[in-house]
Amino acid sequence: MSKAEHQDATELSADELRELDAHWRAANYLAAGQIYLLSNPLLTEPLKPEHIKPRLLGHWGTSPGLNLVYTHLNRVIGARGLDTLCVWGPGHGGPSVLAGSWLDGSYSEIYPDVPRDGEGMERLFRQFSFPGGVPSHVAPEVPGSIHEGGELGYSLAHAYGAAFDNPDLLVACVIGDGEAETGPLAASWHSNKFLDPVHDGAVLPILHLNGYKIANPTVLSRLPAAELDQLLRGYGHDPLHVTGDDPAAVHRALARALDEALDRIALMQRSAREGGVAERVHWPMIVLRTPKGWTGPAEVDGLPVEGTWRAHQVPLAGVRENPEHLRQLEAWLRSYRPEELFGPDGRPVADVLACIPDGSRRLGATAHANGGLLVRDLPIGSLDSFAVPVDKPGTTLHEPTRILGDLLRQVMKDTRTRRDFRVVGPDETASNRLQALYDASGKAWQAETLPVDEHLDRHGRVLEILSEHTCQGWLEGYLLTGRHGLFSCYEAFVHIVDSMVNQHIKWLRTARRLPWRAPIASLNYLLTSHVWRQDHNGFSHQDPGFVDHVLNKSPEVVRVYLPPDANTLLSVADHALRSRDYVNVIVAGKQPCFDWLSMDAARAHCARGAGIWDWAGTENGGEPDVVLACAGDVPTQEVLAAAQLLRRHLPQLAVRVVNVVDMTRLMPREEHPHGMTDFEYDGLFTADKPVIFAYHGYPWLIHRLAYRRTGHKHLHVRGYKESGTTTTPFDMVVRNDLDRFRLVMDVIDRVPGLDVRAAAVRQEMADARTRHHDWIREHGTDLPEIADWSWST
Amino acid sequence: MSKAEHQDATELSADELRELDAHWRAANYLAAGQIYLLSNPLLTEPLKPEHIKPRLLGHWGTSPGLNLVYTHLNRVIGARGLDTLCVWGPGHGGPSVLAGSWLDGSYSEIYPDVPRDGEGMERLFRQFSFPGGVPSHVAPEVPGSIHEGGELGYSLAHAYGAAFDNPDLLVACVIGDGEAETGPLAASWHSNKFLDPVHDGAVLPILHLNGYKIANPTVLSRLPAAELDQLLRGYGHDPLHVTGDDPAAVHRALARALDEALDRIALMQRSAREGGVAERVHWPMIVLRTPKGWTGPAEVDGLPVEGTWRAHQVPLAGVRENPEHLRQLEAWLRSYRPEELFGPDGRPVADVLACIPDGSRRLGATAHANGGLLVRDLPIGSLDSFAVPVDKPGTTLHEPTRILGDLLRQVMKDTRTRRDFRVVGPDETASNRLQALYDASGKAWQAETLPVDEHLDRHGRVLEILSEHTCQGWLEGYLLTGRHGLFSCYEAFVHIVDSMVNQHIKWLRTARRLPWRAPIASLNYLLTSHVWRQDHNGFSHQDPGFVDHVLNKSPEVVRVYLPPDANTLLSVADHALRSRDYVNVIVAGKQPCFDWLSMDAARAHCARGAGIWDWAGTENGGEPDVVLACAGDVPTQEVLAAAQLLRRHLPQLAVRVVNVVDMTRLMPREEHPHGMTDFEYDGLFTADKPVIFAYHGYPWLIHRLAYRRTGHKHLHVRGYKESGTTTTPFDMVVRNDLDRFRLVMDVIDRVPGLDVRAAAVRQEMADARTRHHDWIREHGTDLPEIADWSWST
Repeated sequence: MSKAEHQDATELSADELRELDAHWRAANYLAAGQIYLLSNPLLTEPLKPEHIKPRLLGHWGTSPGLNLVYTHLNRVIGARGLDTLCVWGPGHGGPSVLAGSWLDGSYSEIYPDVPRDGEGMERLFRQFSFPGGVPSHVAPEVPGSIHEGGELGYSLAHAYGAAFDNPDLLVACVIGDGEAETGPLAASWHSNKFLDPVHDGAVLPILHLNGYKIANPTVLSRLPAAELDQLLRGYGHDPLHVTGDDPAAVHRALARALDEALDRIALMQRSAREGGVAERVHWPMIVLRTPKGWTGPAEVDGLPVEGTWRAHQVPLAGVRENPEHLRQLEAWLRSYRPEELFGPDGRPVADVLACIPDGSRRLGATAHANGGLLVRDLPIGSLDSFAVPVDKPGTTLHEPTRILGDLLRQVMKDTRTRRDFRVVGPDETASNRLQALYDASGKAWQAETLPVDEHLDRHGRVLEILSEHTCQGWLEGYLLTGRHGLFSCYEAFVHIVDSMVNQHIKWLRTARRLPWRAPIASLNYLLTSHVWRQDHNGFSHQDPGFVDHVLNKSPEVVRVYLPPDANTLLSVADHALRSRDYVNVIVAGKQPCFDWLSMDAARAHCARGAGIWDWAGTENGGEPDVVLACAGDVPTQEVLAAAQLLRRHLPQLAVRVVNVVDMTRLMPREEHPHGMTDFEYDGLFTADKPVIFAYHGYPWLIHRLAYRRTGHKHLHVRGYKESGTTTTPFDMVVRNDLDRFRLVMDVIDRVPGLDVRAAAVRQEMADARTRHHDWIREHGTDLPEIADWSWST
Repeated sequence: MSKAEHQDATELSADELRELDAHWRAANYLAAGQIYLLSNPLLTEPLKPEHIKPRLLGHWGTSPGLNLVYTHLNRVIGARGLDTLCVWGPGHGGPSVLAGSWLDGSYSEIYPDVPRDGEGMERLFRQFSFPGGVPSHVAPEVPGSIHEGGELGYSLAHAYGAAFDNPDLLVACVIGDGEAETGPLAASWHSNKFLDPVHDGAVLPILHLNGYKIANPTVLSRLPAAELDQLLRGYGHDPLHVTGDDPAAVHRALARALDEALDRIALMQRSAREGGVAERVHWPMIVLRTPKGWTGPAEVDGLPVEGTWRAHQVPLAGVRENPEHLRQLEAWLRSYRPEELFGPDGRPVADVLACIPDGSRRLGATAHANGGLLVRDLPIGSLDSFAVPVDKPGTTLHEPTRILGDLLRQVMKDTRTRRDFRVVGPDETASNRLQALYDASGKAWQAETLPVDEHLDRHGRVLEILSEHTCQGWLEGYLLTGRHGLFSCYEAFVHIVDSMVNQHIKWLRTARRLPWRAPIASLNYLLTSHVWRQDHNGFSHQDPGFVDHVLNKSPEVVRVYLPPDANTLLSVADHALRSRDYVNVIVAGKQPCFDWLSMDAARAHCARGAGIWDWAGTENGGEPDVVLACAGDVPTQEVLAAAQLLRRHLPQLAVRVVNVVDMTRLMPREEHPHGMTDFEYDGLFTADKPVIFAYHGYPWLIHRLAYRRTGHKHLHVRGYKESGTTTTPFDMVVRNDLDRFRLVMDVIDRVPGLDVRAAAVRQEMADARTRHHDWIREHGTDLPEIADWSWST
């Protein structure tokens, strides 16, 4: 459709224009009111200092633009009967989205104590950024929101996540020009190469150029128009530009642009769905260029404010103390003519409400923003069909993640029609040995394909892009809108999304306390290609600290599992995929690993989270002399090898072997819902015997979890201590003092009263370490006795 | 210059072509040799299984492309006498850069045991990815490298960092098409809006499209050529495209493109420097499209390898066991005709060496890649001129970061000519109250400016872009090439660069162990706008966990400081700016904060890192009854208020106040060079008295640091426990049980043998908490007694 045709096609009537402008003015009034007013919400009397909040907090600058989008989305949703979710990238513009949902009535439905009348307006204003009230951002408390936007960068990836497998959904996404400078946002433009026009909904990016960040112009707003246009076309979009500062003209232009964009989207979806057109779609987008803090004070204290960075937060400060500012604020608020917008009872008048769509089509009321209402249990069958047979511990080997791949394939297959399960990863699904998935779904890909390609599929549900940020953002958006998924990632590089998982955990922690938010599927990480097996890559790929990072966060949300073998991995993955409102971190290797537990034993062990492996120890009834504890696949192997050495060399020693799968079991019961009581803890670890704990990651984590336990002073932890490089697997454990020989030495050093035989064994162990070290340096491989080791009693 | 003119301009002679191809073939041979060969490096005898490494590790796929760039950079460096640094984004192509530096002789100069002859070649091959040898990546061990590239995404930001304030330097930057999908890389394209053609060097991005990642096609390689061109033009570049798989044709085309790019760069720099042209420059870049694993095996076991993702790591596996693979490997290696490239002694022949530039112009020998050779001490004068006067503790208030801003302004001013100091931040320099800097330097900005703009400067050395990734990458590149800087960041959002700081710490940890790498300036963070004062933003902006993250890493590199006031901030910043090879994390507030220590006292206190504030306690000679410890500005204020309450209400109690500035002092001496001995620790904290520790961040960090101390079981820590929202400052500490009243209650709960009076005081404190809570909820502000509190004895 040419521009000229299009301009003929949509022209707002005078009534429509008046109504849209009324809604927008009302929203602007409400946004400013939230920042400033404690009382006198309708300005029924002249503004006085006591009507003003004592602390002025919030962000005005972005609000008029967000309001404009809210207003115009209302119109097209109503006119076209669209199912729509909006992701508000500049989420610090909370006053705006709160205003929109109060106007569309959804706010008062969820919070009946804030009705859509004068009393409600006063509460709406007062509660904003007020102690005991609501946060200043588009936080979980805000109806219609899946995206807080406090930490910028993730709006577009969230929008795509929401659109995947939601063919009838339109996801509008407002991207601020500040946010557009971030890496995660810059990467996520290419998400359009992964959006299937047949099975997925549409994403409509609205790049809002208001020109300024906190204190600087934005890069994109200062590009020549043609250069910006090239950039967006290079991202694969067909941009529609709306620019202006005259409200009526901008209303008309934005209405035109939205109609054109939605016409194009409808056509593209029809071509793909009915016409079978399989070319990559160049989706439309909107570039909306309006002044920052538009309609706010033009100047304050002689300095320009509207249209500059000075409008970012609170344009008029010290209003209680400064009569001129008070006067300016009153003039500003009255410029919206509230008396035309709200009745004497504070209810919005008909013109204001005219553009608002009905019922669940309202942006504040869409179920897609409360995904727990839509989520269904995943079809997960019995684990027995995927389990590896274990007749005897430690004699057969499997690659745990490959076994998990079989389970995931089945889930992928059994959701073929429902399409509510996705696996994301940064180009590592096969490297992480989950390739069985491809039997059930290819990899989503809309760009060019070549004959040599494998498993690319325009309709695939495996998502691979070399951006952990985009993977994480997609999955978050997918889960928040009521679906399921798993993120498989190299362990070291999941730190790339440390800050994103922070925000998701904060979201879940808050959402769990809101009765109206239904629980959503957990965010599940499979961290593999882990620290101990970076044979190809070495030190840069060695970092087990994500567990530490996550365990700092809200205990009601975070769960960490270190399954020691294939069947335990199946068990914890099954649990994670069924769970709700958690962030589950599962760390498991992809390399061949001994099978220790049968499926039944694995289920029982994982249900306990930590337990004694009596078949591995040498206890006989009484208290042990020493506890060998382990968490993680490699430490478990080394502990069992150490137990075997002890059994052979010091058979009189009563050794207990404890394996920990669920790390939070180590925490006190008062600090984590999975935490053990002291009674339980002492039952496993004893209160006074030496405990040698071989842990997968940084050793001090175990101390941080267990420092309150009675026996803590007897706890000695081995783990990764940043001694990494490109070397053999056994050399890695030796370098970090986690090897079987070192563990035996630790036992001998810590068990009191051992005899001279023990001293000789200790020397043997030390000699063995030297022997291994020398062999590895000479041959470049581990000694056959390591490579071929297996457990025997 | 038009394309046609250009094609006339550069045409390789037959000799040049032969020489370049010889160098490239030699490099390819050496790269493959490193991955495969244990011995028989010159193939002087038929290849046998025992010549092959037992573990085949490394990445072949990217190597031929990197080699090609190395070869051609050699040519233009020599021809034009350029000072050049190359950043190798696909750093896993270690074999290639190792080959290049061995060929240019720089490798053997640094590592004389690996000479440029047959014996050296055998060592070069054997040591690669071999235990005790060298890592597989372009790690610190590799001459000419400032960028390991293991974690992808940072090459281009590093390149810009290296180019800033290096007007005579060309920084070539190879960007893999995998890396190009990451967020940090995508964001860093816009760095060209910050590069000053007058004072900065040039960055020449070379986007290498080999089409595949580990297991997938890359997004950029599958865009239509015109769309990719638009994207790169939208990024502000003028791209030159080189595509092919015929070596001779590609040699010619790449030589032409490089000459054209360098001609343009020279012209642009001349225009800006001599002609005074102040328009934003659209720098050239090269798009190099060649097959992945080019010149390697075309097919293996019937599947295509060359030109596909299958060439990513080791194209021929199991060579020792599989005679056909062995045969293929030999044919592959011999296809480079090593006998033409190396003499019988293994020395490269003249043709191979012809393109290599001289001396320090060689890529492996540039001092810019060993920045410690170039770094000069910063001119930092006496702190006294910036210090705030403190006659009496806790009676005056200053904003610590604003005071620091004065010091930074002076450093910025005193480096005006040297131009070796930069301050970076994500649009927060003024928000973080460092705006005094603008008196000495504006903010770098090459894009459009408007009359309303402030402090934008084409030659500025303050760098602001709303991307923590780009800030971090720029600063790392700047430091690694021998300059100084500071990154000021909101505390919560520094987690965005968790993974980047990991890699920088790993780099420093390794570089410190290489005698030839001279120490560089430390990476200094100022984390402010911290967890306790997120009045405008609330929960999403509250996260003090970066300290925990950093303290997991190599202790020889990491330092963490929590100065409690303005003068202590000056002292630690001064120390950090003078230091070498550290990552210094400084956490300090920007809000008005009581001044506790005079400059002299601050210096002495910071030198100790932790100490007793006897003026604040009520000890009188003997052991105290209780220790009130604090770290961080807000906890220090609350501890002092608690001490004051105790003095007033329980005057008989002997209270010791300890303040900790340097967090690593708490660690055992054996675990950190700053760690206290147990004797020192017990001297401060006692071995058996209750210690109530008010800490800025997650409380368990203190336990993790101090768990080995004798008195640990008497240690009770208060800190941030994820109870955040938009509220008043005092409500924040109450919510997290860090407030003065709670601390007094903690003391009463833990000091044994207190009388009934104490019980009454405890009740008073509990009542005070309720009274404050209610007031805050009602008025939205803290009670005046909090707002106006000051210290008195």
